[in-house]
Amino acid sequence: MKLCRHGPPGREKSGLVAADGSVRDLSGVLAELNGTTDITGSALAPRTLAKLKKINPDKLPKVSSRARVGACVGGTRNFIAVGMNYADHAAETGSEVPKEPILFNKAPSCIVGPDDNVMIPPGAKKTDWEVELAVVIGSKARYVEEKDALKFVAGFCICNDVSERSFQMERAGQWMKGKSCESFGPLGPWLVTPDEIKDVQNLDMWLDVNGTRMQTGSTKTMVFGVAYLISYISHFMVLEPGDVITTGTPPGVGMGKKPPRYLRPGDVITLGVQGLGMQCQKVVPFA
Amino acid sequence: MKLCRHGPPGREKSGLVAADGSVRDLSGVLAELNGTTDITGSALAPRTLAKLKKINPDKLPKVSSRARVGACVGGTRNFIAVGMNYADHAAETGSEVPKEPILFNKAPSCIVGPDDNVMIPPGAKKTDWEVELAVVIGSKARYVEEKDALKFVAGFCICNDVSERSFQMERAGQWMKGKSCESFGPLGPWLVTPDEIKDVQNLDMWLDVNGTRMQTGSTKTMVFGVAYLISYISHFMVLEPGDVITTGTPPGVGMGKKPPRYLRPGDVITLGVQGLGMQCQKVVPFA
Repeated sequence: MKLCRHGPPGREKSGLVAADGSVRDLSGVLAELNGTTDITGSALAPRTLAKLKKINPDKLPKVSSRARVGACVGGTRNFIAVGMNYADHAAETGSEVPKEPILFNKAPSCIVGPDDNVMIPPGAKKTDWEVELAVVIGSKARYVEEKDALKFVAGFCICNDVSERSFQMERAGQWMKGKSCESFGPLGPWLVTPDEIKDVQNLDMWLDVNGTRMQTGSTKTMVFGVAYLISYISHFMVLEPGDVITTGTPPGVGMGKKPPRYLRPGDVITLGVQGLGMQCQKVVPFA
Repeated sequence: MKLCRHGPPGREKSGLVAADGSVRDLSGVLAELNGTTDITGSALAPRTLAKLKKINPDKLPKVSSRARVGACVGGTRNFIAVGMNYADHAAETGSEVPKEPILFNKAPSCIVGPDDNVMIPPGAKKTDWEVELAVVIGSKARYVEEKDALKFVAGFCICNDVSERSFQMERAGQWMKGKSCESFGPLGPWLVTPDEIKDVQNLDMWLDVNGTRMQTGSTKTMVFGVAYLISYISHFMVLEPGDVITTGTPPGVGMGKKPPRYLRPGDVITLGVQGLGMQCQKVVPFA
């Protein structure tokens, strides 16, 4: 099942993706099932997802193909990211592979739709891309063991972990300053339920800037896999339905190019993860 | 005006504090005004707060004095903290005063009521206290100037920025691992609107463990004041109604004692900030 959200920013409604790729409006059905028209944490409980899976998307009303696609989950409170989680990316940045996961966070207010514009913040000089596999939590996870961890997943999606390297690394302290700017968290287009993903540790991923391939990778070179990460993080904080974990990026970020190549207004970023669709963002100046 | 929340965890309702200190149930009035019974971001808009100020709390139904007091704001998505923001605290930890604010985050799922238990997480060895002044945002703040910043504040409250130092500093990477554990974010008891606080940069603060004074300080020794912090943070991320910024701690944390003194099950922490009431937490083992 592929869930999505459609409509203007802040007023998104839930959708289901039909076999022909068209978006169908789920909000009427979801309101009856769950008392909400949007896909937020409460709609991601295993019981609710099981009911949604019985629905034939072809019987739902078609949404205009020109409608905006929103981030594939709303109301996220905790947006956690994992640093240096690909052996080949660590090598490219001259960093050692970490002994345990490096966690940081992105402000939830940076989440946008998969095809929304990415804005260069004022004062930014090193805005960079990062294609990532993101995990959306479906049930409260607290001190979870690795063997049980995937049961807490509602679905997977693409995240572009947009980063301003100068804010991240040259402005004192923690990374969040360079990870949280408005529009720095495109999520989606779809929230793909785990039954559609044969092996989450074997998904190809790629990212182009203006049609030139920049990142090529696979989730199989992750240092810490998805199940390990969920278990690990749940030992430091309680994960709640709707929380998002973005799991790190493979090689090919702008910072790693020789010379470095950062984003400029007018650039177009396209990116994808196998089975999860693709995103396309235009880079725009501050407004 | 002093707003508060009462009731069992996850089912809190809004309250107003009357002149005699009793809690009055605001949920009926708030539902009519705002379509919600709880104090979350949408209830903190200046227009809503202005309407609430006209209410005489004495005319509202009294809440049992035995009712649990919840965190003074619900639905927080972004819980930001400021590190090393008191000149005298920086000195005690052997750190330099930072050139610009050090930001980190606490997971929103760590927020609890002001008198709820603080739990020592499994594997923790250095659980510590930090009395802080917290700011709750009332309106969306994006690239705000310092001179305008206080207009975006809904109110002030106490935060105990509970920290496990071994997770914070010995577990690779960013501080959030030691700042986000379940129960590590007592907030409240009241959300005090700015009109009740004469000078937010001149508030006494204190914290006791088992009746022994550990922290004594004043917001006047902050390195970066509240207005500066809001403006600064709003240049790195969009702040939303209900977001919480906790602004750093004065001297006297357990890590700074010689020898260090960390929390143990059975300890009782009491803390206060002038004009914002007080908190009292019992420290309990993992359960």
